[in-house]
Amino acid sequence: MNQTVLRLGVAGLGTVGTSLLRLVERHGQDLAVRTRRPIAITGVSARDRDRDRGVDISGCGWFDDPVALARSAEIDVFVELIGGAEGAANEAVRAAISSGKHVVTANKALLARHGAELAAAAEAKGVSLNFEAAVAGGIPIIKTLRESLAGNTVSRVFGILNGTCNYILTRMEREGLSFEACLAEAQRLGYAEADPTFDVDGFDTAHKLSLLAAISFGTEIDADAVYVEGIRSITTADIEAADELGYRIKLLGVASRTDTGFEQRVHPTMVPKSSPIARVDGVTNAVAVEADFVGRLVLSGPGAGGDATASSVMSDIADIARGDVVGTFGRPASALQPYRRAQMRAHEGGYYVRLAVFDRPGAFASIAQRMAENGISLESIVQRRRAPRADAPDHPTPLEPQPVILITYDTTEAQIKDALDRITVDGHIAEHPQMIRIEQFA
Amino acid sequence: MNQTVLRLGVAGLGTVGTSLLRLVERHGQDLAVRTRRPIAITGVSARDRDRDRGVDISGCGWFDDPVALARSAEIDVFVELIGGAEGAANEAVRAAISSGKHVVTANKALLARHGAELAAAAEAKGVSLNFEAAVAGGIPIIKTLRESLAGNTVSRVFGILNGTCNYILTRMEREGLSFEACLAEAQRLGYAEADPTFDVDGFDTAHKLSLLAAISFGTEIDADAVYVEGIRSITTADIEAADELGYRIKLLGVASRTDTGFEQRVHPTMVPKSSPIARVDGVTNAVAVEADFVGRLVLSGPGAGGDATASSVMSDIADIARGDVVGTFGRPASALQPYRRAQMRAHEGGYYVRLAVFDRPGAFASIAQRMAENGISLESIVQRRRAPRADAPDHPTPLEPQPVILITYDTTEAQIKDALDRITVDGHIAEHPQMIRIEQFA
Repeated sequence: MNQTVLRLGVAGLGTVGTSLLRLVERHGQDLAVRTRRPIAITGVSARDRDRDRGVDISGCGWFDDPVALARSAEIDVFVELIGGAEGAANEAVRAAISSGKHVVTANKALLARHGAELAAAAEAKGVSLNFEAAVAGGIPIIKTLRESLAGNTVSRVFGILNGTCNYILTRMEREGLSFEACLAEAQRLGYAEADPTFDVDGFDTAHKLSLLAAISFGTEIDADAVYVEGIRSITTADIEAADELGYRIKLLGVASRTDTGFEQRVHPTMVPKSSPIARVDGVTNAVAVEADFVGRLVLSGPGAGGDATASSVMSDIADIARGDVVGTFGRPASALQPYRRAQMRAHEGGYYVRLAVFDRPGAFASIAQRMAENGISLESIVQRRRAPRADAPDHPTPLEPQPVILITYDTTEAQIKDALDRITVDGHIAEHPQMIRIEQFA
Repeated sequence: MNQTVLRLGVAGLGTVGTSLLRLVERHGQDLAVRTRRPIAITGVSARDRDRDRGVDISGCGWFDDPVALARSAEIDVFVELIGGAEGAANEAVRAAISSGKHVVTANKALLARHGAELAAAAEAKGVSLNFEAAVAGGIPIIKTLRESLAGNTVSRVFGILNGTCNYILTRMEREGLSFEACLAEAQRLGYAEADPTFDVDGFDTAHKLSLLAAISFGTEIDADAVYVEGIRSITTADIEAADELGYRIKLLGVASRTDTGFEQRVHPTMVPKSSPIARVDGVTNAVAVEADFVGRLVLSGPGAGGDATASSVMSDIADIARGDVVGTFGRPASALQPYRRAQMRAHEGGYYVRLAVFDRPGAFASIAQRMAENGISLESIVQRRRAPRADAPDHPTPLEPQPVILITYDTTEAQIKDALDRITVDGHIAEHPQMIRIEQFA
């Protein structure tokens, strides 16, 4: 046993930081047995020294400035739980690396923005930069991709990476409530921020996806290349139609190797009810990986929460305690390669389309004609006369728009968009067409 | 980069061995980048040197005797893919360790029987003894329990660990076929051995479970303590009744920490249809872990197959190439503790019971009375007059037995067994009662 204590400096004592302190308090002795090295928290930094966090920090050195903690000679590992791509987190992580400290972080924004550069710096100093907690909370997806699948070529990695969105979509489906109502509920329960943009518009998922893609494919981290659509446009009409057609709607992040290059995309997605990802509900996350030797793995678990995230932070710390230095992205930082981005226009797949069609002769024929002109075959067509509304119990007038749902066979994004543009110009529809991509699971 | 090649000796060139050779051929260069050390297969051993395996072994040294390969100065890592708890596999692994070679094995029987002793020997020599491929094929459950969950106390680990049984149960459910018919089909497709005992009677699952329990709880490996029931007794009547009551039947291995000690059990299990484990079909495996910080993780993927298993073997080799030596069971071998075995009699849970009850006055009242005497409350009772059979289209005679299905609330194994013994003695039932344990998922 290595008797030298591994000294941790923890910056940020919010939910995750506090959980980490409790974890070390509760399992510190067992951890020392497992990793064969004692672990102790010797320094902490946060905004408010006096806040009652329910854990004893009197034995740890206090640092008002996280950068000073990062540089302190009293620590071996800097644990960054501050958050944000720039500012204190960024500065402190750089300071820690340049002072020769290992870094463990839960900060996906920082890594999506500066990951390659920070990984190279850590490598040059011979220290670890680990980030299991930055993607999918307690799910060990980073270690799985980086180590367990080392002998595979990954073809696709995809998942439900944002608990807020999945909670909202699950509630919309179960309760028949609108997006707005479910968002308000999620905010009340603390599952969504006051400004929910980062979550519901897909940016959080995009950050995480860009990290998964880099590890999976050995490509440069390229968060700006991720095509992003959030879930604000999803209506109960879409959710009901999906259900009827055998699908559920999930916000997926998908990174895949295609004939035209590497795709990275985040958007609401129709997934077959029979697929494992369709059954992941509420704030749970799930990640599926398809690779040449292993086939398909699916990992699911808590995507957020202090304790689950602290579990992943400790996994990274335990690796450092054992002396295992893996490259941040599973290979030397210099091995991350430039790559060919697949264009969204070239994306191939099936599509769900919901149109509000004016109920007049020839409207549907014209729509079908536009699809045919673009070489698009239809797998399903559902046209239902809208039930009379309570406030207008009489028959709808002939011009009141009726919902028409189409499911296409595989086509390209360019073809479907062109067809929908033409249909819009033709004037038979009352609203902007709704279009949701379908993801298949071989 | 460490320029010293990591030299592998592979003993056993069946499906997994051949896949491993192809994996190294296809991904060897990328692996060298990832682990920063070149990897090469320098020696092989198998029964038949001349068999065409579709891979080129001309560059590898040939050994008729696996023990000679294990001792050869030409290798650094001995990869044991022979199988079996005793004989050549056992002898060769011991020879490798005593010659200071790392060992990677897919051999669950060997580890369930001799794991603690072999781990201690490896530790004394400062070499690794890794076995990711021994449990759940391509699923990285060993690394997850051993490393990712190092900061957790595990309360329960359970899963579908035998693809043969899961294939048979899935087919019985989907096609309404008998156990015997599905077993014959599985044998024809190569999913079951000519002698299927090891799989269908639960012993394979028990071996794997004993390894998961040791890593999860830090307890001694104790395969003999596993309570084992296989799936031969499951009938289509059980599968239909389960479906009607909202359950599916799976062969689960369950290891848990209870008030009376540690439980290890393998038996057909009723799992709620809504639980993630219920939806794992065919030869797929799944493992769920419940632990104090992470909550619940579920990992699913291929439980067998040459390529998926080779992926796990390579994961272990890559760890060795990087120089990461983790204790075989996630801690020093000496830290595996004796423990208190929970007795099956003390097992608490709900039970499904199917009785063939003679259709005469008072029979059901007598059964209900026996349950009540043992303090057992019934959650559901389904009594259906059996449909007349095609070969006996008239009404059943009053004495022809009728199926009665009971679902109990939580009780103990001792109570339910006693009640069923009394019911049997009372003489109202025509066959031995069927009893299947229900597993709940909080």
